[in-house]
Amino acid sequence: MEATRQPRRRGPYAKSAERRRSIIDAALDVFAARGYQGGSLQDVADAVGMSQTSLLHHFPTKRHLLLAVLERRDELGRTEPRAPEGRDFPTRIVDRVRLNERVPGLIELYAILCGEAMTDGHPARDHYTDRFERLRHEYADQLRALQEQGRLRDGVDVDRAAASIIALWDGIQAQWLLDRSIDMAACLADYLDLIIRPGTESESAG
Amino acid sequence: MEATRQPRRRGPYAKSAERRRSIIDAALDVFAARGYQGGSLQDVADAVGMSQTSLLHHFPTKRHLLLAVLERRDELGRTEPRAPEGRDFPTRIVDRVRLNERVPGLIELYAILCGEAMTDGHPARDHYTDRFERLRHEYADQLRALQEQGRLRDGVDVDRAAASIIALWDGIQAQWLLDRSIDMAACLADYLDLIIRPGTESESAG
Repeated sequence: MEATRQPRRRGPYAKSAERRRSIIDAALDVFAARGYQGGSLQDVADAVGMSQTSLLHHFPTKRHLLLAVLERRDELGRTEPRAPEGRDFPTRIVDRVRLNERVPGLIELYAILCGEAMTDGHPARDHYTDRFERLRHEYADQLRALQEQGRLRDGVDVDRAAASIIALWDGIQAQWLLDRSIDMAACLADYLDLIIRPGTESESAG
Repeated sequence: MEATRQPRRRGPYAKSAERRRSIIDAALDVFAARGYQGGSLQDVADAVGMSQTSLLHHFPTKRHLLLAVLERRDELGRTEPRAPEGRDFPTRIVDRVRLNERVPGLIELYAILCGEAMTDGHPARDHYTDRFERLRHEYADQLRALQEQGRLRDGVDVDRAAASIIALWDGIQAQWLLDRSIDMAACLADYLDLIIRPGTESESAG
């Protein structure tokens, strides 16, 4: 049956969405290799095999393309561990760090654009500012919930610990990009062990 | 006496060294605002008030200029707390974090170039790779010394803790650049408190 099935017909909207997606994926690779400033629209057009004019039909400016790439990166490499119930916050973080090791291109893109975002008037600046703020709130909420269960060690400042988890994670990724012998997951696990007490069997079983 | 003293004569070597220094300082500002890829030699020449041709007399390529800027940045913002005896390792780190808050331009330059260093074939790549490796060794040595004094908390992995101090520091600087309400020094101090026991009065008095 499979063999005789007709290829699914696609309307112009589906085709355009596919085209858009392939441009975004190509741009993600180009920016991960050369940065946003260093990677040109022509590089992206070449990578996807279309003219720059056709590309501009989908993304009127390079800035539009960057914002779509940042969205896509977040989709692909969600660092927010709000996974289904059953897994502990610290376990979810460490699992995510391990998963990220399999997608070095996404980590690279993140690190490059985060640096570039600090340059004057860079279009990724708001994205990173908002991302950090949102993540700090999410992590602080998770830590407060653990605190209510008596699982946060004495004297831990929830807001600073939230910022520190993100900071440690970002910083260790940068070192790992330059030296793959760094054990990112172990560094995060060490830190989480310092601030969070282990859960009971039923709580931590995933 | 001061008033009648003749201005010190400077030979051509001293003049050239001065000129070189002013180019490096201008380049530091340009790269801190626009990145290495985004900032041009013409921007630097304009900032220092010379022609690009004269500038190239001092630095034959933009790459040469970048390496001089990176060296200068390290000189200005030494993050290696190997300060004179008397101050404790954790105190020296936290002091340095506080000092860095006064030089946001240097922090910005560091963050921007560290991100850019991840792009293919970037001339700052070796600088950051070497810097991370050197710092990890230095910090691990400091932590081992504390361990011998019985001041490291049980179960701390010295090498991972060294990498984590650097990671946390770099990561929290990135958040601080986008939101100045972040208390960088407190985040570092919290972490160091988690891994290091306070010294005795005589040890920790600076």
